[in-house]
Amino acid sequence: MRDDIRIPRSKENDYTPEMATERRKFIEAKTGEPMTLTGQYTIDTGVLPGNIENFIGICQMPVGVAGPLRINGEDAQGDFYIPLATTEGTLVASYSRGMRVITESGGVTTTVVEQYMQRAPAFLFDNAREARAFGEWVKENFDNIKAAAESTTSVGKLKHIHQWSVAKSRYLRFNYTTGDAAGQNMVGKATLMACEWIKRNYPGGANYLLSGNMDTDKKHSHLNMLHSRGKRVIAELTVKKEVLKAIMGVDTKMLAKATVLANTGALMAGAAYNGPHAANGIASLFIATGQDEANVVESHAGLFTHELQDNGDIYLAVTLPSLICATFGGGTALPTQRECLNMLGCVGKGKANKFAEIVAATVLAGDISLGCAVIAGDWVSSHDQLGRNR
Amino acid sequence: MRDDIRIPRSKENDYTPEMATERRKFIEAKTGEPMTLTGQYTIDTGVLPGNIENFIGICQMPVGVAGPLRINGEDAQGDFYIPLATTEGTLVASYSRGMRVITESGGVTTTVVEQYMQRAPAFLFDNAREARAFGEWVKENFDNIKAAAESTTSVGKLKHIHQWSVAKSRYLRFNYTTGDAAGQNMVGKATLMACEWIKRNYPGGANYLLSGNMDTDKKHSHLNMLHSRGKRVIAELTVKKEVLKAIMGVDTKMLAKATVLANTGALMAGAAYNGPHAANGIASLFIATGQDEANVVESHAGLFTHELQDNGDIYLAVTLPSLICATFGGGTALPTQRECLNMLGCVGKGKANKFAEIVAATVLAGDISLGCAVIAGDWVSSHDQLGRNR
Amino acid sequence: MRDDIRIPRSKENDYTPEMATERRKFIEAKTGEPMTLTGQYTIDTGVLPGNIENFIGICQMPVGVAGPLRINGEDAQGDFYIPLATTEGTLVASYSRGMRVITESGGVTTTVVEQYMQRAPAFLFDNAREARAFGEWVKENFDNIKAAAESTTSVGKLKHIHQWSVAKSRYLRFNYTTGDAAGQNMVGKATLMACEWIKRNYPGGANYLLSGNMDTDKKHSHLNMLHSRGKRVIAELTVKKEVLKAIMGVDTKMLAKATVLANTGALMAGAAYNGPHAANGIASLFIATGQDEANVVESHAGLFTHELQDNGDIYLAVTLPSLICATFGGGTALPTQRECLNMLGCVGKGKANKFAEIVAATVLAGDISLGCAVIAGDWVSSHDQLGRNR
Amino acid sequence: MRDDIRIPRSKENDYTPEMATERRKFIEAKTGEPMTLTGQYTIDTGVLPGNIENFIGICQMPVGVAGPLRINGEDAQGDFYIPLATTEGTLVASYSRGMRVITESGGVTTTVVEQYMQRAPAFLFDNAREARAFGEWVKENFDNIKAAAESTTSVGKLKHIHQWSVAKSRYLRFNYTTGDAAGQNMVGKATLMACEWIKRNYPGGANYLLSGNMDTDKKHSHLNMLHSRGKRVIAELTVKKEVLKAIMGVDTKMLAKATVLANTGALMAGAAYNGPHAANGIASLFIATGQDEANVVESHAGLFTHELQDNGDIYLAVTLPSLICATFGGGTALPTQRECLNMLGCVGKGKANKFAEIVAATVLAGDISLGCAVIAGDWVSSHDQLGRNR
Repeated sequence: MRDDIRIPRSKENDYTPEMATERRKFIEAKTGEPMTLTGQYTIDTGVLPGNIENFIGICQMPVGVAGPLRINGEDAQGDFYIPLATTEGTLVASYSRGMRVITESGGVTTTVVEQYMQRAPAFLFDNAREARAFGEWVKENFDNIKAAAESTTSVGKLKHIHQWSVAKSRYLRFNYTTGDAAGQNMVGKATLMACEWIKRNYPGGANYLLSGNMDTDKKHSHLNMLHSRGKRVIAELTVKKEVLKAIMGVDTKMLAKATVLANTGALMAGAAYNGPHAANGIASLFIATGQDEANVVESHAGLFTHELQDNGDIYLAVTLPSLICATFGGGTALPTQRECLNMLGCVGKGKANKFAEIVAATVLAGDISLGCAVIAGDWVSSHDQLGRNR
Repeated sequence: MRDDIRIPRSKENDYTPEMATERRKFIEAKTGEPMTLTGQYTIDTGVLPGNIENFIGICQMPVGVAGPLRINGEDAQGDFYIPLATTEGTLVASYSRGMRVITESGGVTTTVVEQYMQRAPAFLFDNAREARAFGEWVKENFDNIKAAAESTTSVGKLKHIHQWSVAKSRYLRFNYTTGDAAGQNMVGKATLMACEWIKRNYPGGANYLLSGNMDTDKKHSHLNMLHSRGKRVIAELTVKKEVLKAIMGVDTKMLAKATVLANTGALMAGAAYNGPHAANGIASLFIATGQDEANVVESHAGLFTHELQDNGDIYLAVTLPSLICATFGGGTALPTQRECLNMLGCVGKGKANKFAEIVAATVLAGDISLGCAVIAGDWVSSHDQLGRNR
Repeated sequence: MRDDIRIPRSKENDYTPEMATERRKFIEAKTGEPMTLTGQYTIDTGVLPGNIENFIGICQMPVGVAGPLRINGEDAQGDFYIPLATTEGTLVASYSRGMRVITESGGVTTTVVEQYMQRAPAFLFDNAREARAFGEWVKENFDNIKAAAESTTSVGKLKHIHQWSVAKSRYLRFNYTTGDAAGQNMVGKATLMACEWIKRNYPGGANYLLSGNMDTDKKHSHLNMLHSRGKRVIAELTVKKEVLKAIMGVDTKMLAKATVLANTGALMAGAAYNGPHAANGIASLFIATGQDEANVVESHAGLFTHELQDNGDIYLAVTLPSLICATFGGGTALPTQRECLNMLGCVGKGKANKFAEIVAATVLAGDISLGCAVIAGDWVSSHDQLGRNR
Repeated sequence: MRDDIRIPRSKENDYTPEMATERRKFIEAKTGEPMTLTGQYTIDTGVLPGNIENFIGICQMPVGVAGPLRINGEDAQGDFYIPLATTEGTLVASYSRGMRVITESGGVTTTVVEQYMQRAPAFLFDNAREARAFGEWVKENFDNIKAAAESTTSVGKLKHIHQWSVAKSRYLRFNYTTGDAAGQNMVGKATLMACEWIKRNYPGGANYLLSGNMDTDKKHSHLNMLHSRGKRVIAELTVKKEVLKAIMGVDTKMLAKATVLANTGALMAGAAYNGPHAANGIASLFIATGQDEANVVESHAGLFTHELQDNGDIYLAVTLPSLICATFGGGTALPTQRECLNMLGCVGKGKANKFAEIVAATVLAGDISLGCAVIAGDWVSSHDQLGRNR
């Protein structure tokens, strides 16, 4: 590769505004296009190491606020104002409308029911029996493996190891708790140490690949739906018939009927989520608060549940089995991101579950709103000719 | 809902810095936490209508540049420098390393093979035969339905309608081409008009829900894997054995073996993508260029393919069946976002396919890099005792 | 392979009782175990060519009859008595009980909404663009391809071809109608002819594999759920509250609740069917009537739908998207199998849809019965202490 | 329901030939069709109670023998002749041909790596926290629950309970070992007893449904792929390049290439099995030996694995994660069925694993044969014009 096409680097001052400028000038020279706006940021670049390489500037994404959202969580309690970073018009307004339904119904109850983070190495053998024997040995040596893994971290705890045999390979999936961090790196390092311990101690040695793709990192999977990656969080409430009618113009019975239809459509489509659009709220809240932006692919999976009551009220719940989020590490310490976390009272030790509850509550708000909008849209359209809605 | 908990709004000046400040002060009052950094943005808020509501300020996310990435596309041709907005350390460096492999191999060939955007209403009947008869009628009246749909847009073209019967419902899925726009709103409006035409003209009328969740919008689905939502794009190249060894320290044969293992792991996990981590590159490039940030959930699905050649070189390809992206509409006109699109030569008419090719090429670069890193990690670990890698 | 371990064959009399006896003696000699019962059959072996090789005798499986089952189909009309071949105790009794619910509710309405049989070759190219160009050519030459395919059969009609690009391959899926035959062999032969025509006429030629596994033959797939393989059949009825209570001892409201729970469980499990046990009835009816016994794996997929009415009655439906069955060809001409087909009035031209309707109606009967049994089990258990059910 | 349409029953002699005749006459009267052949069976009806109700006669299905199949299992060792009951022509011949490849390659190695049978009740609560608390209680009281479950059986052992929270429900999945029986009924009874114990002892009581459909009984599911239902069995061997060429006329390299293509097709189709046709062999062997015929839907799922060796030989393996089979109970004691089990040396205590190994070996044989046939078909067709294959 020719030197003149290499992006400029600096061993000592790589994150300075000057290096960013040098790189933008380099890109300008290569592309003939001006690079000025990306350089007009206001944050202190001193925070950047650990978050970015080849830094050239800042992407400015608008943030809107939705709320208040009343949450009766175990960790999140009270009325919250939710920062949503998005470029999709109507998103904030729609979520905010759903939050009004929730708040006027007395709030949403949120519960974190499970949490794990995984790294999933694969071990290679000469035949299926060797792979099976290895699996037995792993079970017998769990305490030592755990000790090796945990020697790398004061926070991460190895809870259990799932195992699968396929042909002559043995796939393991290490399940850890990781405190307030999302923990992907933490468990990667811990599992590497565990694998090395295994390799040294397993009679005859053991070849492995640190990930056999059953983690499953940065992709949706049915496995994650079953065995929570990140937090498994549930947000639930009973919406009063009158409240839904007043705010959304929708009858609870019609919402139930439409939900059944949408659930079936999702099932037939083989969708990762059977509700309206968990991904929107998660992506926007993730970006605003410095979460790993790609984790929305795992986090958006879930189950949307409803139950029409005899009195016409409707129980609604969203179960997110793989919500990956953090209040420590990653982008959570960047300036605007931390401010938005702060706005939610999610800065400091022991706040990760609180944040997860807020995300789940936000998802439910957005799904109530869009779910009703699709119905009202039908209503709107059916009356379109008469001009009532113009 | 009490007035004092309502977020301040203004009918006339809702997007001004002053309104943003008023809202931040409101939040400060409610939460007791300072909201200052979010207000220190540099962009002109005049661009915001259509992108955000309840605007409070700006999220500043760092952007790094990776490249050069040589692309031999139909629309993207030449060496590109790729802007990636992320808070995940190592991401930019890793993608850049993969791009080096590609560029030194002579570049990646990219091809858009198909493209559609969908809206999928569900029609409700009294029994299965009525639903079936309706489906026949829809087929016979396709031209009129198409005319009704296209009356709402100069760009969108209705190409075909998929249909499914379940019990007494008939799910339709309208497939459009949408030019340079991602087109979700465009096809929503067009399909609403089409459904209204159907409702007026179908003998006896027809009740429907504008979305029966088979679109499938803002969620991964197997259906999207089969019937492209957005663009179906393929990036492919043959990596020379020597190049991979030189840059990644990995033998192509070992890469092939590890890929098989990872493909199997993904299959067993029921993963949306069988390669390493398409979501990372897509999310970062999406955010930097003003794409709808939630669409990464549909876009990250795909197939990672390899074929070891007799001479030891390795053919690698990524097929992304549901890459949803745009060079027009949504956040693409926001200041820093447009600058990053510009940096890729993707501003102006007819650039959407070019952009899609760049995304697919980026994904392949990242997967080459991480795929090899997992192996080298193994290699690292296997030599750990000897201290060679410290 | 040594001659003395080879199973005896005869060029001329391979299906005679004598050859069967010779083979059983051979097995006896090899295994030391007596082979007598398998030889005590009563059917005429003259029917066997085309159904079996290395014939050694007959498996005798008991057949029970369930019914009457009142069907208000388009082809199946009246009260039917259903032959079920099974070795699982309670199966016949349970299905029969469900049929009583149906019959006393006035019968089940059945509808075949779609039908296709597929063969899915894969074509190999040097890169993605060649594969795409080939796909376009296939579309343009559909009429010629259709003519080539249909030259092999007077019954099969090529309706359309689905296409998918993955890396440098192009997967096609030929969709045919096949009359009263299941048609796997018919479409295999037709597609081979079509592929050969393509190979001869596509500029530069085209390498292919006759199946790229997207048929998907003899396995469940999500693709089959979406794009019917065999017949897509729906059976539906509204069960009166009083009838369900009287026969099953179960309240419709409880059935609705339990169904929601079971639907969700199936969704979370990633199940091919979200109802109780379609496979039981299908397998038993298939075996009794000479269907291809392995096709139950495709046929058991489906959607179980319910809707509680305001008056307490409950609408129930089963949608089977890939019911593969025949009244011609395969084992349908074998003696007892034909007799059982006859018992259903399904022998003769144009009876395949009638048979499919009967299968779907049977499935619904079985699922009503088991669905209620699970609940009654709960009820049983809840009253266990009081001894009422002992 | 009118008496004259009821199928005749007898409290005392329900399984006698006389009652069967009476029922056939009843059907003849109702349908106007003769029912004679079904009555011409040779087995002793004394064995039938527990296997069938409303007995009307016997379905006679032809059985062919394939083999010899050399198995180097842990329980199955030696050359086996495999009884296959089918009405699909070529099936036996094709499996037999694949067995020849295996036997001439020195045999297939088979290994049972795991085995469980499940019953999966769902418990209903008022909210997610109650459901979570219940889950904790279940973990703490595992020993008592196990004791309650095992009080109903001398064979079944409760090994562990998986748990999932969805909204306000808690799904449990009880995993048992069940000896030589498939065990569905055994674990149903045991789990009922366990649930009743829970209900009595959980503070405040606990409502449940005995199956929440996560068992997942009589249907394929991704869950079964991950957490073995029945036996997880692996059959593997290395086929010599020369052997494959000699018997199948196919080069191992071409087989590898075609397998990759077929694996990808299956992945894109969302198939339950990524090899050619596990279901055929399983269904035929199941029917011949008295297995529950519907269990082929769970059993046919799996992974087909290949690895081309440097010397041109090819490693092939099939992993069946949910093979449900038995050598005790169900239809295994019926006359011809038992004879076929005997022919495999699978009658008597402790033979279930042996039988499972034979099934997996058979599946691999069939997949080698069909996999090669698809290729040879291509070869045939490509040379068709030249008449070389005529």
